[in-house]
Amino acid sequence: MKISDLVRESDVPLATVKFYIREGLLPAGDATGARRAEYDERHLSRLRLIRSLTVVAGLPLSRTKSILDTIDHPDGDMYETLGRAISALAADPHADAHSAHGARYAEDALAALGDEYHASDARMEAFTQLGEALRAAAVCGLSIDAELIRSYGHHAMEIARAEFTRMPPAPEAAVEYSILGTVLYEPVIAALRRLAHQNLAADLR
Amino acid sequence: MKISDLVRESDVPLATVKFYIREGLLPAGDATGARRAEYDERHLSRLRLIRSLTVVAGLPLSRTKSILDTIDHPDGDMYETLGRAISALAADPHADAHSAHGARYAEDALAALGDEYHASDARMEAFTQLGEALRAAAVCGLSIDAELIRSYGHHAMEIARAEFTRMPPAPEAAVEYSILGTVLYEPVIAALRRLAHQNLAADLR
Repeated sequence: MKISDLVRESDVPLATVKFYIREGLLPAGDATGARRAEYDERHLSRLRLIRSLTVVAGLPLSRTKSILDTIDHPDGDMYETLGRAISALAADPHADAHSAHGARYAEDALAALGDEYHASDARMEAFTQLGEALRAAAVCGLSIDAELIRSYGHHAMEIARAEFTRMPPAPEAAVEYSILGTVLYEPVIAALRRLAHQNLAADLR
Repeated sequence: MKISDLVRESDVPLATVKFYIREGLLPAGDATGARRAEYDERHLSRLRLIRSLTVVAGLPLSRTKSILDTIDHPDGDMYETLGRAISALAADPHADAHSAHGARYAEDALAALGDEYHASDARMEAFTQLGEALRAAAVCGLSIDAELIRSYGHHAMEIARAEFTRMPPAPEAAVEYSILGTVLYEPVIAALRRLAHQNLAADLR
């Protein structure tokens, strides 16, 4: 298809499509003339993915690029690839600098969680993020008690197990599923929790 | 305390503190002279809150301001205030424009969820966000089947119930708890789910 078809099919403006190509997020089309190039379904699906990561998941371009790179170059096994994707999703890219502060919170949480998170260690990217998130809540006067952490941890693990049973068997598809599932399903879970809050508040009226 | 003490205590640079005051996120101190002002604990806790919302939750300044406004002016009951806060947290502030597309996904999800979300309706802010999040996943080829939606919905409701039992009884404290809990606990739950994924991937090695 021509670039104009790509624009129409994706509903992404031409200037934005060209910007993504310049920034290396979207591969250029195959040149078919001095000023013409041909695009295909892969460009369209990549474009939809970029829009979902930036507009829906609210990720900045730099992190979107890291995630696309991880999908395109899944070096190592699932564990390593997932770690790189999680790292690219960090809310605060400088979190490592404070990780000594957050680590204590994450360790306390893991102690409360017990055996359910038996493989966790401080080198896991999500461990750092957990510590930072717990620290931020504590700093704002909203410390999370051990019982609530156990509830969160249990339900998060149940969700993760349900997701793992849906993992595609082919390794490349599995990597893409786990990375995109982390990014794209998180807003679904967050929206359901917010909807649950609104339901409970409606019941109080 | 002087502004220099506020900077030291909060670990936020002076230029940033002044920027927050100019932007109306942080109230100015009480003037004690032509070029001096006095700050107190409320300034310090507000500053920590701004940092958590922007740096940890990754919210842009405009949305951080909306959330602070909602906390400062909790008009209406819990249900209305929570709705305004959830609206301020929308990943895509223009989501209303597409809501007709997302609504179908949200309605299908609610049909799968059954009675557990009996109070939901299409005017709920979280309903729109759920539709947008489901649509984004579907557009990227990662549609969520009814069984996984039921699992998500059930665990999200269990989490929300555990949180509601911790709501402070005073109305103003309850509003602040529910708004901050939405913002600050979401990254904790997301981090635990990512940690659960890393645990399950580690078990596969």
